[in-house]
Amino acid sequence: MTSIARSHAEQLDAADPLAHFRDRYLPHGDDVIAYLDGNSLGRPIRAVRDAWLDLADHQWGERLIRSWTDGPGGGWMDLPEQVGDELAAAMLGAAPGQTIIADSTTINFYKALRAALALRPDRRVIVMDRDNFPTDRFVAESIASELDYEIRWMPSNFAEPIDDDVAVLTASHIAYRSGYVADVAEITARAHDAGAVVVWDLCHSVGVFPAQLDAWQVDFAVGCTYKFVGGGPGAPAFVYAATRHHGQLRQPLWGWLGRRDPFEMEQGYLPAAGIRSMMSGTPTIPGILAVRAGTALIAEAGIEAIRAKSVALTEMVIDLYDAVLAPLGFDLGSPRESRRRGGHVTIHRSDARELTRAIIDRGVIPDFRTPDGIRLGLSPLPGSFGEVWDAVEIIRQIGAA
Amino acid sequence: MTSIARSHAEQLDAADPLAHFRDRYLPHGDDVIAYLDGNSLGRPIRAVRDAWLDLADHQWGERLIRSWTDGPGGGWMDLPEQVGDELAAAMLGAAPGQTIIADSTTINFYKALRAALALRPDRRVIVMDRDNFPTDRFVAESIASELDYEIRWMPSNFAEPIDDDVAVLTASHIAYRSGYVADVAEITARAHDAGAVVVWDLCHSVGVFPAQLDAWQVDFAVGCTYKFVGGGPGAPAFVYAATRHHGQLRQPLWGWLGRRDPFEMEQGYLPAAGIRSMMSGTPTIPGILAVRAGTALIAEAGIEAIRAKSVALTEMVIDLYDAVLAPLGFDLGSPRESRRRGGHVTIHRSDARELTRAIIDRGVIPDFRTPDGIRLGLSPLPGSFGEVWDAVEIIRQIGAA
Repeated sequence: MTSIARSHAEQLDAADPLAHFRDRYLPHGDDVIAYLDGNSLGRPIRAVRDAWLDLADHQWGERLIRSWTDGPGGGWMDLPEQVGDELAAAMLGAAPGQTIIADSTTINFYKALRAALALRPDRRVIVMDRDNFPTDRFVAESIASELDYEIRWMPSNFAEPIDDDVAVLTASHIAYRSGYVADVAEITARAHDAGAVVVWDLCHSVGVFPAQLDAWQVDFAVGCTYKFVGGGPGAPAFVYAATRHHGQLRQPLWGWLGRRDPFEMEQGYLPAAGIRSMMSGTPTIPGILAVRAGTALIAEAGIEAIRAKSVALTEMVIDLYDAVLAPLGFDLGSPRESRRRGGHVTIHRSDARELTRAIIDRGVIPDFRTPDGIRLGLSPLPGSFGEVWDAVEIIRQIGAA
Repeated sequence: MTSIARSHAEQLDAADPLAHFRDRYLPHGDDVIAYLDGNSLGRPIRAVRDAWLDLADHQWGERLIRSWTDGPGGGWMDLPEQVGDELAAAMLGAAPGQTIIADSTTINFYKALRAALALRPDRRVIVMDRDNFPTDRFVAESIASELDYEIRWMPSNFAEPIDDDVAVLTASHIAYRSGYVADVAEITARAHDAGAVVVWDLCHSVGVFPAQLDAWQVDFAVGCTYKFVGGGPGAPAFVYAATRHHGQLRQPLWGWLGRRDPFEMEQGYLPAAGIRSMMSGTPTIPGILAVRAGTALIAEAGIEAIRAKSVALTEMVIDLYDAVLAPLGFDLGSPRESRRRGGHVTIHRSDARELTRAIIDRGVIPDFRTPDGIRLGLSPLPGSFGEVWDAVEIIRQIGAA
């Protein structure tokens, strides 16, 4: 038994102003006691299911091709910017016209990093950290090897001087392993002081931690929508480019939908105005409609309220860790300071891979990360304190066995 | 009235062995008499709707993150190759292991063209035609301007000598305006004779015209799945790379899912084996499942039977054109020879833009293409001869008004 009684978790649930959002999600299988992997794939929102049905039966079914250009509020062709603006308003702290939903995080990161580098043509250094998510590192490495850039690896806190040969600094808002929250404003300011441009990856923060992209003076940002936003497996990502760069926005994945007047089918590529030039091919409509539904749910709950519950959930996990997991040889891999801690808590033990399998067999689904990490992702909208308490109790039982 | 009686169309429908496939599609709005735009956005298949519901309720809903790696027949992670192989077997004439479903046509074309160019590092010329679909031209122009290639524009029949400075020849199997069917085998052979590599765009042929990518010795191919395959708006595209090139397959959009052992999250990019290295980011699952459903329908009907009905449908349109549209000043923009004609017939008249609006108001949905083309797309599985007859009759009435 843990030192924090389950009744305490139940009290927190009873007082939780977001508790009723749990009903907005589809039920999971009876074999699942606790789902702690919403930081990898968010739980399915009823409104996403509804959106797919409406798409099949009405938008696509009845209206057919006409839905590309007309419909209530515009056509599908307008969705990349419309839903981008909705996402920006609900959780990115970004004014309209700077965000689109398109492609995957990988493709958007490629476009954003190339666009950022193009703003500093005389500089040849990309700064990033080795703990950044693999796709970010691989994209940067591809660009560096092909276009003769140097990648300067820094510690994750970027607490080293940023020289005036740095073109771009890129990092994750919340670290995918530890959940560490970077000080975006401070790091961005230091990069700007050196004349560099920043590209932030918000994959692990969007929808659970309020961003202030405009206020933080971020240049470019990307992020995925299938974690806390709840857009479903492989939902399209977003890309943000600050308005002040729109006059010089250039990315090399030229496609028909990033061109000015695409349906004139003319010769030669002329980038569309503004953020639209970050598009390439045809957007995936079931994906964008799912992002819209997830975004609406977050807007309704409020990102600040979500963050408050997220902090309370991770706080409880750390309290339980101290009480019952640390004595079993687990190590805490996430910050204790709530200000620096995102929506997941990672615990380490050398047998984490096997433990994760046993935990899943008991109905608790966390996320294993090599070599020895178990990520406990806490989803504020569908999750409850009782569920998390039960999960830690099962981890304790298995860890002690 | 036309010279071909509607009863003739009704007889063709009565004798049509594919007629029953019409019931496999969702109904469209009562305001639609004839949908002749399946070459732009295919009609919704009931099984696609079912797939999205199953995804929401069961695969995602009940099984949550576990569906990425396990499920009946494999996890979502296996879908890009599995559905790629299904598509390849049903309509591409390609053996397994050479095709994946991923990203958009634009992104896949970028990857394929870069991979093709990388096979001929000492050559600097890309051959294509100005009538190719805009996204193909734009991608080639971006690569040419950035990496110092020359684009050599040729007529659409490529009936000019291909010199030994040509790295890649790229073209569309079926032209998006005219519906002209290129002789892929012959053009590919001539390109190969000159030591060049080919990249074919199958967007307007896949699902309506049988391809033989392996027999034709094609090197790379891409195509979209929201036209005749019926994967829905913005469904993910396919990319094919012949097995003989897999040892040297290199594309620059490095992402975590194109890497060997992606979940080891290690440093440095090592391309995955085979066609998997053409992946970049996370695949869109509602999109891939829709492609699977559309592919299964085509496999059930048989691509040769689909092509036979497609020829009969376009033949009837041309007969009706000769009888009633040519006298009204329309010009035929598509080949008369059925062997060289794809799944759509384009007619031209200077007032095509206004005519298209009026035709749509009467419940017939074709596709306008600048400057003066009306594309009549004939979908063999959901379409009928009677519907097409009605459509031409309405075009005649409006064209004569």
